[in-house]
Amino acid sequence: LTSADIPSDAADVGLLSPERVGSPAEAATGDRAFLQAMLDAEAGLTRALATVGLAPVEAGAAVTAAARAEAFDVRDLALRARSGGNPVIPLVADLTAAVDVETRPSVHRGATSQDILDTAAMLVARRTLRQVLDDLDRTVAALGALAAEHRDTPMAGRTLTQHAVPTSFGLKAAGWRSLVLDARERLAAVRAALPAQLGGAGGTLAAFHAYAEADASAGNLSTDSGQVRNPGLELVAAFAAEVGLAEPPLPWHVLRTPIAELGSGLALTGGALGKLAADVLLLGRTEIGELAEPTGGGSSAMPHKANPVRATLIASAARRLPALASVLAGSMVAEDERPAGAWHAEWQTLREALRLVGGAARQAAELTEGLRVFPERMRANLDLTYGLIVSERLSIALAALLGRGPARELTTRAARTAAEKGVSIRRTLAESGLLTEHQLQDLLDPAAYPGSAAALTDRALRRTAAPEPEESP
Amino acid sequence: LTSADIPSDAADVGLLSPERVGSPAEAATGDRAFLQAMLDAEAGLTRALATVGLAPVEAGAAVTAAARAEAFDVRDLALRARSGGNPVIPLVADLTAAVDVETRPSVHRGATSQDILDTAAMLVARRTLRQVLDDLDRTVAALGALAAEHRDTPMAGRTLTQHAVPTSFGLKAAGWRSLVLDARERLAAVRAALPAQLGGAGGTLAAFHAYAEADASAGNLSTDSGQVRNPGLELVAAFAAEVGLAEPPLPWHVLRTPIAELGSGLALTGGALGKLAADVLLLGRTEIGELAEPTGGGSSAMPHKANPVRATLIASAARRLPALASVLAGSMVAEDERPAGAWHAEWQTLREALRLVGGAARQAAELTEGLRVFPERMRANLDLTYGLIVSERLSIALAALLGRGPARELTTRAARTAAEKGVSIRRTLAESGLLTEHQLQDLLDPAAYPGSAAALTDRALRRTAAPEPEESP
Amino acid sequence: LTSADIPSDAADVGLLSPERVGSPAEAATGDRAFLQAMLDAEAGLTRALATVGLAPVEAGAAVTAAARAEAFDVRDLALRARSGGNPVIPLVADLTAAVDVETRPSVHRGATSQDILDTAAMLVARRTLRQVLDDLDRTVAALGALAAEHRDTPMAGRTLTQHAVPTSFGLKAAGWRSLVLDARERLAAVRAALPAQLGGAGGTLAAFHAYAEADASAGNLSTDSGQVRNPGLELVAAFAAEVGLAEPPLPWHVLRTPIAELGSGLALTGGALGKLAADVLLLGRTEIGELAEPTGGGSSAMPHKANPVRATLIASAARRLPALASVLAGSMVAEDERPAGAWHAEWQTLREALRLVGGAARQAAELTEGLRVFPERMRANLDLTYGLIVSERLSIALAALLGRGPARELTTRAARTAAEKGVSIRRTLAESGLLTEHQLQDLLDPAAYPGSAAALTDRALRRTAAPEPEESP
Amino acid sequence: LTSADIPSDAADVGLLSPERVGSPAEAATGDRAFLQAMLDAEAGLTRALATVGLAPVEAGAAVTAAARAEAFDVRDLALRARSGGNPVIPLVADLTAAVDVETRPSVHRGATSQDILDTAAMLVARRTLRQVLDDLDRTVAALGALAAEHRDTPMAGRTLTQHAVPTSFGLKAAGWRSLVLDARERLAAVRAALPAQLGGAGGTLAAFHAYAEADASAGNLSTDSGQVRNPGLELVAAFAAEVGLAEPPLPWHVLRTPIAELGSGLALTGGALGKLAADVLLLGRTEIGELAEPTGGGSSAMPHKANPVRATLIASAARRLPALASVLAGSMVAEDERPAGAWHAEWQTLREALRLVGGAARQAAELTEGLRVFPERMRANLDLTYGLIVSERLSIALAALLGRGPARELTTRAARTAAEKGVSIRRTLAESGLLTEHQLQDLLDPAAYPGSAAALTDRALRRTAAPEPEESP
Repeated sequence: LTSADIPSDAADVGLLSPERVGSPAEAATGDRAFLQAMLDAEAGLTRALATVGLAPVEAGAAVTAAARAEAFDVRDLALRARSGGNPVIPLVADLTAAVDVETRPSVHRGATSQDILDTAAMLVARRTLRQVLDDLDRTVAALGALAAEHRDTPMAGRTLTQHAVPTSFGLKAAGWRSLVLDARERLAAVRAALPAQLGGAGGTLAAFHAYAEADASAGNLSTDSGQVRNPGLELVAAFAAEVGLAEPPLPWHVLRTPIAELGSGLALTGGALGKLAADVLLLGRTEIGELAEPTGGGSSAMPHKANPVRATLIASAARRLPALASVLAGSMVAEDERPAGAWHAEWQTLREALRLVGGAARQAAELTEGLRVFPERMRANLDLTYGLIVSERLSIALAALLGRGPARELTTRAARTAAEKGVSIRRTLAESGLLTEHQLQDLLDPAAYPGSAAALTDRALRRTAAPEPEESP
Repeated sequence: LTSADIPSDAADVGLLSPERVGSPAEAATGDRAFLQAMLDAEAGLTRALATVGLAPVEAGAAVTAAARAEAFDVRDLALRARSGGNPVIPLVADLTAAVDVETRPSVHRGATSQDILDTAAMLVARRTLRQVLDDLDRTVAALGALAAEHRDTPMAGRTLTQHAVPTSFGLKAAGWRSLVLDARERLAAVRAALPAQLGGAGGTLAAFHAYAEADASAGNLSTDSGQVRNPGLELVAAFAAEVGLAEPPLPWHVLRTPIAELGSGLALTGGALGKLAADVLLLGRTEIGELAEPTGGGSSAMPHKANPVRATLIASAARRLPALASVLAGSMVAEDERPAGAWHAEWQTLREALRLVGGAARQAAELTEGLRVFPERMRANLDLTYGLIVSERLSIALAALLGRGPARELTTRAARTAAEKGVSIRRTLAESGLLTEHQLQDLLDPAAYPGSAAALTDRALRRTAAPEPEESP
Repeated sequence: LTSADIPSDAADVGLLSPERVGSPAEAATGDRAFLQAMLDAEAGLTRALATVGLAPVEAGAAVTAAARAEAFDVRDLALRARSGGNPVIPLVADLTAAVDVETRPSVHRGATSQDILDTAAMLVARRTLRQVLDDLDRTVAALGALAAEHRDTPMAGRTLTQHAVPTSFGLKAAGWRSLVLDARERLAAVRAALPAQLGGAGGTLAAFHAYAEADASAGNLSTDSGQVRNPGLELVAAFAAEVGLAEPPLPWHVLRTPIAELGSGLALTGGALGKLAADVLLLGRTEIGELAEPTGGGSSAMPHKANPVRATLIASAARRLPALASVLAGSMVAEDERPAGAWHAEWQTLREALRLVGGAARQAAELTEGLRVFPERMRANLDLTYGLIVSERLSIALAALLGRGPARELTTRAARTAAEKGVSIRRTLAESGLLTEHQLQDLLDPAAYPGSAAALTDRALRRTAAPEPEESP
Repeated sequence: LTSADIPSDAADVGLLSPERVGSPAEAATGDRAFLQAMLDAEAGLTRALATVGLAPVEAGAAVTAAARAEAFDVRDLALRARSGGNPVIPLVADLTAAVDVETRPSVHRGATSQDILDTAAMLVARRTLRQVLDDLDRTVAALGALAAEHRDTPMAGRTLTQHAVPTSFGLKAAGWRSLVLDARERLAAVRAALPAQLGGAGGTLAAFHAYAEADASAGNLSTDSGQVRNPGLELVAAFAAEVGLAEPPLPWHVLRTPIAELGSGLALTGGALGKLAADVLLLGRTEIGELAEPTGGGSSAMPHKANPVRATLIASAARRLPALASVLAGSMVAEDERPAGAWHAEWQTLREALRLVGGAARQAAELTEGLRVFPERMRANLDLTYGLIVSERLSIALAALLGRGPARELTTRAARTAAEKGVSIRRTLAESGLLTEHQLQDLLDPAAYPGSAAALTDRALRRTAAPEPEESP
C-alpha cells in the first residue's frame, strides 16, 4: 500500500462503515491484513517444506523474513490480480523476486493459489474472531452485571407490541446475555476448528510427491528422504502447525464446511446482538424511555437530539449478515476440484461479514457497559394500562376467590372499563365490594407478579462461557 | 382435515414439489403432522401440570386421549387462525370442547400460543430430522462404498472448468462423504438440543405461579404443595420430559438460537448435498459421461433422453435453502417478549426448509446407492488434453533431469504444441531425444500421478459418524 | 384432488399461513389452480395448433372440454411427477387418456414440459395479481382518505426512534399511499408483460416444423399449408393469444427476466406494505397509542389484549419476500437451453411469493380501511419532550431575534434543562424574559411548525394509479 | 484521503475484488467518489438555497468552490462518523470551516444528514450506471455480431445437462443479448428516475420555512420574498435541478422505492450476465470446447492452463447480487420518519452492488468482444450421441412415413441401440431397409433440424436498446 499507488477514488477507508471504522476488527480484515496473512501462509509453507525435507531450512527463514506486508504494494497486486482472477499469482511473483536466488525455488513450491488464499482467510478469521470474542466477553460481563443488578426490577413484558404481563429487566438482560453466550460459544468452536488449506493444483498434493521424487533423483534432499513416507500428508500436518490452524483431514477446496459454518456463526452473532439492539431501540423511544445509550449521537439538524447510534449500527449489521451468510452457504455448491465463481464469491463476502460482526461486537460492548437504565420509568409504564397488565393474574385469582362465573364477569367488566374508558381496574374492583383492600393491594401490584423471573435470571447467570479450546500461540 | 373442508383450490399436495412428494419428510411436516405435534404439546403440558400438582392426573390422560389430529378439522382451524394470527387459539377452543367438563380447566392452563407452536415445531423438526439422518446415513454408506471401490480409479481433476491434474474418483466420493458427514453431525447435534418451549404470556411462567397460589388458596392441589418450590421451573422440566425435548434454561420466545441453528444446519446439509449434485450433473453431461444416475427421468418431448432428475432436484433444493436460512437468521431480531412478525415469518420457512432437506436427503440416498460410474470414460477423458494433464509433473521432473532452463524450454514447447496443434506431449518429448521410452512411459501416465489421493481417501474413510446423543424414546 | 388420495399428513391447507388463508390469492395459487392453469395451457396449445393447421379444429375443442382440473387427481399427479421431476409428464398422460383417440395426437403436440409449466405459472401469476391489484387499490383508496382527513393533524415526526420535529398524520399516510402506488404500478406493468412460453424441446420450435413437414408429406394438414410460412413463430403468436398472455419474442426457458421481475415486483410490494405495517405496529404500541387496528386479535393467554394481527402478518410477509425474490433472481443463472435445478427452484418459491403478497395485500386493505386514528394522542405525545420537538425552529427563530450567539446559548440551556430535568422549554424561555408571551405561544406550538407537510400531502394525493394496460378478456 | 491518514491495515484497495479493480465503476464508487458526491450535494443545496432566496448567491459559489474532495481527509471523516453514525456530520463541520465566515450559515442550511447522503448515493449510482450502460452497450453490440455471424451455426441444444435437439449458436447469442438488453433497459429506466433527496429533519421541509420566516423577519432575504410561496417545495425543485437528479414528489427518507428498484435492477443485470457466464463456462469446459475466452488467466500451479477468468468473475458477482438486493428490498421496512438501521444497512450494500455490476459489465464487454467460437467443435459434438440428437424429428417423420406403430418400434430400437451400444441410429435405420439413402441423409443431419432458430435470431436482433431518457448535462 504505497501511497503513490492509492488511486484517488477507488480506496475504501470506512466512510460508509461507521459500525466498524477504527475497530480492531477493521484493521484485522483490511487489504493489508489479508496480504500479511497470505504472506504468513507462504512463509509457513516454505518452513513446512523445510520440515519435511522439501526445501532448505534456510529458505524457510528467508521467506519468513521477506514476508512483511509493508514491503509489497497492495494496490499494484490488486491490479495485477485481474488477469488471473486472484491476488496470489502476482504475490508469488513479487515474493519470489524479494528473496535470494537460492530461496526462489522454495517459494510457493507445489501449492496452488487457493491453498494460500484460503489459509490466509482462515488466519484473518482467526485473528478477527479473537477480537470479537473479547468484545463478546465484555458484553456478557456487562449484561451479567445488569441482570444481577436488576434481577428484581419490574418492567412491562410486551408481546406483539402490547403490554402483556410484568417481567423484570434482569430477566431481559439475562436473556440477551444468554443469546450472546450462544453466539460466543458457536464462534469459539468455529474458530478453534478453522483449518489450514493445502491441496496443490487438484487437491491431491501430487506436486509435493513430484518434488520429493525429483529431489531424490537429483540427490537434493536436505534430510534423510527415508523419513518421508507420504510427503503430502506430512506436509499438510507441518503446514497447519506452522500457521497455527487446524490440520484438515482433506483438502477442502470444494468442501466448504469451514466457510459455511463461519458464515452461520457470524449470522448467529449478528442475530444475537441484533435482538439486543432492537430492544434497546424500542425501550429507548421517546415515549417509553426505559433505557438510553451511554451517550447519544448528535444530529446534524437538531440540537440536543440524542440518537441511539450504537444500537442503530448494530441493527444495521444484523440486517446485512443473514444475506452475507446465505452467499457463503450457497458457495458450498462448488463444482469440480476447484470452482469457477463459488470460491471467488466468498472472499469479499466473508471479509464484510467478519467486519460487521467485529464492529457490532465492539458497539455492543460499549453499549452494554454504559447502558442507562431507568427503573422508575419502567415502573411508571407498568401503570399505563390501568391495571390491565395484571389481568391474567386477576382472572386466575378471582376464579379461586369468587368462582369461575362471577370472576369472569367481573374481570371482563373491569378490563373493558379500563381499556375503553381508562378507568383503573382497581377502581372497578373496589367498587364491586368483593375484595378487601389488602387483596386489592396485592393482586394489582405489577411488582408482585414476577413469576419465575428472578429464578430464571439466577439460573441464566449461572451459565458461563464454555471453556475455550486451547489457544495455539 | 375432513374432506368436506378441503377447499377446491387452496390445498398444496406436492404438485410443485417433486423433490419431496411422497417422502417421509413430507408426511412429517404436513399440516396434520403440525397439528398432531401441537396436540402432543398440549397433552404433554397437561400431563406435566399433573406431575407438578397443577392439574388432576386424570386430566393428563383425558387430554392425551383427545389429542388425536384426525379428530380435528385442519382447514377449519386454519381459517379460524386468521383473527388471532395463529392456529393455537382455535385449537385450544376445540381441544377444550373435546374433553370432559372436569378436564377443561386443565387444557392449555397457563400457557401461551407460542409455547405450543414452538414446541410443536421442535417436535416436527425432531421427527423429520430422524428421517433425514437416516437418509444421510444411507448416503454416507453408499459414498463410502464408492470411495473404497474407486480408491485407485484415476480421473481428471478439474479446476475453473479445465482439466488440471489427475485425481481419483475415490477421493472425490470421499470428499462428498466428508461433507455429508459434516452435515450429519451438525444436524444430529442440533436435533439433540431442540428444546421444549414454555414461558407463559410474557416468558416469566407467572401464570403457573398464579395457578399454584390459587389452587393452594382453594385447597385444590392434588399433591403436597410443600413439594412445589418453584412451580414454573419444575413445570418446564416436567414438560420437556413429557414431550421428549431438551429442557430450556430460559423460555426462548425471543431467544431464537434453536431456530437459527436449525436453519443453518439445514442450509449446510443443502450445501453438502448440492455439491454432490453439482458434480454429478457435470460429470454426467453428454460430453463427459463419467457418471450417470441410477435411472434417468423421462422427457415429455424426447424419447430416450435420460435426465438426471435426482441431482436436479437436489440442486434445486440447494438453491433455495440458503435464502430460507437467511429468513430464520433474520428472525432472531425479535423485539420485546414476543415479537410481531419475526416469529410468524419462521413457521412456513422452517417447514419448507425441513421438507427440502428431507426430500434432498432422500434423493441423495437413492442417487448415491445407484450411481453408475464409468471408469473407462474417466480414463479416456484423461487423454483429451494430449498429455497436458500431467504437465505439472513433467515440469518438475524434467527440471531435475535436464536442469531448469532446458526443462522449461522443453515443457513449454511441448505444452504449447499440444494445446495449439493437438500434437501429444509424448510425441514432442520423444522427438527431443532427451528421455528414454521408459521415462516417457512413466512420466506421461496420468494414473501414475495420483499424489496422496489414495492416502487421503483412506484417511477420510476412517472417519465415521460421531456417536449420536442418546435418543429419548 | 380426490379426497381418497389426500394423504393424512402431507397436505398443506394453510395451518401455518394465517396471512393468506381463505384469501382469493390462496385459492388462485393452490395446487388445483396450478393444475387448472396447466390444463388451460395444454388446451390453448391444441387450439393454437388448430389455428395454424397443426391439429384438427375439433381437437382444440375436445382438449378444452377435457381440461377441467376436477377431473384429475392432483395428488396422484404429484406422486407421479417424481420420476421425471415435473408434473407435466404425468399430466400429459392423463389428459391424453381423457380425450378421444382422434384427439390424442394433438395433445401436447411438439411442446416440452417447461412450455406448459411456465405458461401455467404466468397464468397463475396473472390471475393472482388481479386480486392483488384490487386489494392494493382498496388500500390506496383507504390511505388517500386517511391522508386527506388528517392533512393537518399534527403528530411527532420520529427519527432514529426519537422525536425530531412535528409532522402530520396526513403526510405519513400519503407517504404510505405513495409506496403502495409504486408497488401497484410495478406489479401492473409486470403483469401486463407476463409472457406465454413456447419453445419445444430446445427452444427452437423445431418439433412444430417437423410436424408441419410430416403433416404435409402425409397430406394431413387441415388448412392450406401454403399459408404456414413459419409454423413455429405463427404458433407462438396463436398460443399467446389463446391463453391471454403476452407473445414472447424468444422462448424464455433460460431467459428468466419475467420471473426475476415478478420476484422483484413482489418484494417491492412486500416492502411497501411492510413499511406501513412497521409504522402501525410502532404507533400502536401501548405507550404511543396513536393508531389501532380495526379490531385486534385475541390472545390465548390474556383476556382483553388486542394484538395488531394484520400488521403482524404483513410484517411477517415482508420479512420473507426479499429472500424469496433473491432465489428467483438467482435462478436467472440457468445454464444451457433448459437448466437442471434453477428452473425447479422457481416453482414453489414463486407460488409462495405470490401468496404472501396476496395475503399481505388483503390484510393491508382491511387494516387501512378500518384503521383507528387517535389525533388527541398524537397531540399529547407532541408535548412529551417539554418542547424539544420544536427546538429546530426555536434555534432558527431565536437566532434571527437575538443574534446567533445569545440564541445558541439560550436554546442550548433550555433544551438541556428540558432533556435533563423535564423543565419545559417554555418555562426556561419565559424566565429569560427575552420573548413576549405571543412569541412564545407561536414558537412553541408544534402544530405551528408543519413545514410543507400539507402541500406535500396535497401533491402526493394528486398522483393516481397509472392507467393499467388494457386487459385481454 | 491524505496518505498520512491511511491506516496500515484498514483500507481496501481491491485486493479481494479482481472483478472490479481498476474499472471505472470502482473509481466511481470509492470513498472519495462518495465524498465528492456528498460535497456536490452540499454545494447544490447552497446554490439551490440561493435560487429561492434562502442564501446569498455568493454562498453558492463559495461552497461549490470549496467542495473538492481532495481538500478533505476521508479517513478522518470516517473516524469521526462513528459518534453520530454517519459521515455527513463531520463533513458539514469541515466544509463549514473551509468557507468564509459569511458563507458558513449557508452550508447545509436546513438539511438533514440523510438529505445529503441519499442524494450522494443517487449521484454515485447515476455516474456508475453511465459506465455500466456503456459496457452493456458494448456487450449488446458484441453479442449482436456473434448472433448474426453464427445465425446458422448448428450446435447441440442441451437440457438438464443432456443433448436434446440441435440449436444454433446464433440463437444462443441472441438469447444472451436479449437478456442484456432487458437489464440495460431496466437500469436505464431506474437511472433516469433516480431522485434527489431533500426533506429536512423530519421530511416536512420545515426548517426551510423557518429560515424563510427568520430571514423575512430579519430583512435578510436577498430576493423578493413575495416570490417564495412554498420555500420547501420550490427548494426541492431547485435542488434537484442543481444536482441533476429527478425531483422527488415526496421526501423519500422512508419511502425507499428508488433504492429497492436500483437493487433489483442490479440483480437483474447480474443475472443476465451470470447466465451468459454460466454458458461460457460450460461450453468452454475441456470436454466440450465450443467456446473460449479471449485470453485465459494463468494458473499459479500449472503452466499453460488457461482459466476462464472473466466468466468466473462474472459468475462470482452473479452469486452475490441477489443477496445484496435482498438487503436493499428488506430495508424498505424503515420505521418512522427516518429509521434506525434500515437506512444504514443500505450504504455499503448498494455500493458493493454497484461495483459488482460495474465490474461484471466490464468483464462481459471484454469477454464477448473477444469470445472465441469453434463451430467445428460444435459440429463434432452434435455427433456424440450417435444420432440421438435428432430422435425427436425422427420419431415425428417416421410416424408419417411408416405409420405410428412401426415408427415407434423402429425409433425406440434405434435409440436404444445408440444409447446402449453406441451403434449409430443411421446404421440401425439403414439396416431396417425402410428408408432411402436420401431420406436417411436428410433426417439424420442435425444441421437440417434448426426449427425456427434462424427466424428467432433475426427477430431478436431487430430489437434494439430502447431510446434512453434524455441526459441532463
